[in-house]
Amino acid sequence: MNTVVLLSRDSLLLKQLQAAFARSAPQLTTVLADDPLAKNAQIAACWFPLPGSLAALPNLQVIHSVAAGIDHLEHDPSCPDLPVCRVVDPGHRQGMTEYVRWAVIHYHRGFDQVLEQQRQQHWERPLQRAAGQFKVGVMGLGSLGSAIAQDLASAGYDVRGWARRGKDLNGVQTFAGAEQLNPFLDGLELLINLLPLTSETRGILGNKTFEHLANGAALINCGRGGHLNIDDLEHALKRGKLRGALLDVFEQEPLPADHPLWSMPGVTITPHMASAASHDCIAEQIAENFRRLNADEPLLNCADRTLGY
Amino acid sequence: MNTVVLLSRDSLLLKQLQAAFARSAPQLTTVLADDPLAKNAQIAACWFPLPGSLAALPNLQVIHSVAAGIDHLEHDPSCPDLPVCRVVDPGHRQGMTEYVRWAVIHYHRGFDQVLEQQRQQHWERPLQRAAGQFKVGVMGLGSLGSAIAQDLASAGYDVRGWARRGKDLNGVQTFAGAEQLNPFLDGLELLINLLPLTSETRGILGNKTFEHLANGAALINCGRGGHLNIDDLEHALKRGKLRGALLDVFEQEPLPADHPLWSMPGVTITPHMASAASHDCIAEQIAENFRRLNADEPLLNCADRTLGY
Ligand SMILES: NC(=O)c1ccc[n+]([C@@H]2O[C@H](COP(=O)([O-])OP(=O)(O)OC[C@H]3O[C@@H](n4cnc5c(N)ncnc54)[C@H](OP(=O)(O)O)[C@@H]3O)[C@@H](O)[C@H]2O)c1
Ligand SMILES: NC(=O)c1ccc[n+]([C@@H]2O[C@H](COP(=O)([O-])OP(=O)(O)OC[C@H]3O[C@@H](n4cnc5c(N)ncnc54)[C@H](OP(=O)(O)O)[C@@H]3O)[C@@H](O)[C@H]2O)c1
Repeated sequence: MNTVVLLSRDSLLLKQLQAAFARSAPQLTTVLADDPLAKNAQIAACWFPLPGSLAALPNLQVIHSVAAGIDHLEHDPSCPDLPVCRVVDPGHRQGMTEYVRWAVIHYHRGFDQVLEQQRQQHWERPLQRAAGQFKVGVMGLGSLGSAIAQDLASAGYDVRGWARRGKDLNGVQTFAGAEQLNPFLDGLELLINLLPLTSETRGILGNKTFEHLANGAALINCGRGGHLNIDDLEHALKRGKLRGALLDVFEQEPLPADHPLWSMPGVTITPHMASAASHDCIAEQIAENFRRLNADEPLLNCADRTLGY
Repeated sequence: MNTVVLLSRDSLLLKQLQAAFARSAPQLTTVLADDPLAKNAQIAACWFPLPGSLAALPNLQVIHSVAAGIDHLEHDPSCPDLPVCRVVDPGHRQGMTEYVRWAVIHYHRGFDQVLEQQRQQHWERPLQRAAGQFKVGVMGLGSLGSAIAQDLASAGYDVRGWARRGKDLNGVQTFAGAEQLNPFLDGLELLINLLPLTSETRGILGNKTFEHLANGAALINCGRGGHLNIDDLEHALKRGKLRGALLDVFEQEPLPADHPLWSMPGVTITPHMASAASHDCIAEQIAENFRRLNADEPLLNCADRTLGY
């Protein structure tokens, strides 16, 4: 029997995933953690699983993130040493492309300034420049970052990208590894983070990074909350090093109602909405990996647990 | 002697145009209205010329708008019956494409809702739908509207367009003439106005148009202030027929500080920033029309004064 167990603290998500598996992968049996059948599960489909819940599954063979990231598994020190896969949905790319395009135009054309001016009933056209004069950098050139960088290049922006290994992307000047981080950052007017959260990338959005950017640059964080040093952000906004930041991800989500970020001048908060794999796509990709598991074929979208992504 | 007279109430614009003509069309003599040489001018380059100023030019042969629209000439009843040309800058299209793309994503992805929620420190993901499920309509399919409609279609939106005459545009369902206005409007979730202001289009953004849209639709006015009936807009916003409106153009610009639009709930004001021809492009196109005038060749970008655009 092919059994998938769904592990998450988000009960709405669990319901939505159950419905999607029933629709798109009816050949699988899907159960929740408290179901006695859970002990049969060969694959666990996870989003922030409760610590210990994975270790309690005796027949588990694959740990499957239902998202693009796998960092939410690292909250569980007892997580067994099994292959970890993630979901790579083309719709993911479309959603992220829209979100980032909005954000880039927002700062490039001065919508941030204009929204602020409206509160003062003040009419003043922001300085307008051609897209080709606006320097944008994308950190992380994986499934999402490479699509975003190329989309922005096709829209005419002056685009750089940074990843661990070298890349060849249409219209994008690429930089690789820690030693090329500073040349990548130097003079950027907009920095977009699309890195996975790992021990190497945690806190990367901080003073040491900001000081290389152009004065008055803007920051977009679509990676994870753990990438951002909030104190450094506040300081950079206060002294005008940064003109603004658009944040979609936070260490604690939902962002608590009394969190200082909600009202920090220059900060725009969105509720982790940049992109999400469709529930049906999640079900289909996990079903395909189930088929591969049974047929002893290589699994799709495996992460490297040593690298953390 | 080839003389161009620059006519506008905007003294900063006059200075910028003088510099651009000196750079990009040094073969022409450019003068202001109060210069004795103005009486020699064969071409007048205009943006809201003072009433009577065109009629006072005895050698005038061509009236040239420095913008895409010619409606600003209609404020002068004594405007002589001469050919009227306008400027069509490819950069114009780029700027407008950026502005409209921002606006479409803004409403499609619920950034309007999220910005509002931030004021209440409230975390709630807006309903997210694929671009192909979002119905967008573009009024006016000329130099700008046709580029915008095709750009949105290429981004995956469900796009309709409306013009006086039929059109064949990639990925866009087109409608022509007054009799097809209602089928064009029916059920649109976002309406973008890129019409020129004429006697036929004045006030077109009003109750009769709004009632055909989907409930909770959004409006983007990039045409002219005279297209919009402000009372009807307020009413439509109040009863939720419209969820919001992004307005870039106004009957009086700058919009006076005490104008009720500044603080009307659901209204976003931008200061006529969607796009502008570059000053150098204006100088070059007027110089080219000067050459054509002297060589007795057909002028570029002539408007039809009977139609008003
Ligand atoms: N906000 C949202 O709604 C949302 C939605 C989906 C995903 N995300 C976030 O976006 C992240 C990226 O997703 P993805 O699918 O594009 O991931 P991915 O395909 O795994 O790509 C990760 C990229 O980051 C680079 N990278 C990793 N560690 C690095 C380091 N130490 N230095 C430099 N570059 C490094 C990788 O370089 P190499 O190419 O050289 O390996 C790769 O280009 C996810 O992990 C998740 O945190 C957010
Ligand atoms: N906000 C800004 O920054 C900004 C910047 C530039 C321009 N604009 C505005 O945008 C307008 C459009 O510019 P453009 O260069 O695209 O103008 P254009 O090339 O003259 O195109 C005008 C379009 O409107 C259509 N049209 C005119 N009257 C109509 C009617 N009664 N019913 C249906 N369709 C009608 C025309 O139909 P046909 O194709 O059938 O003739 C044409 O498709 C300008 O007039 C100006 O007001 C605003």
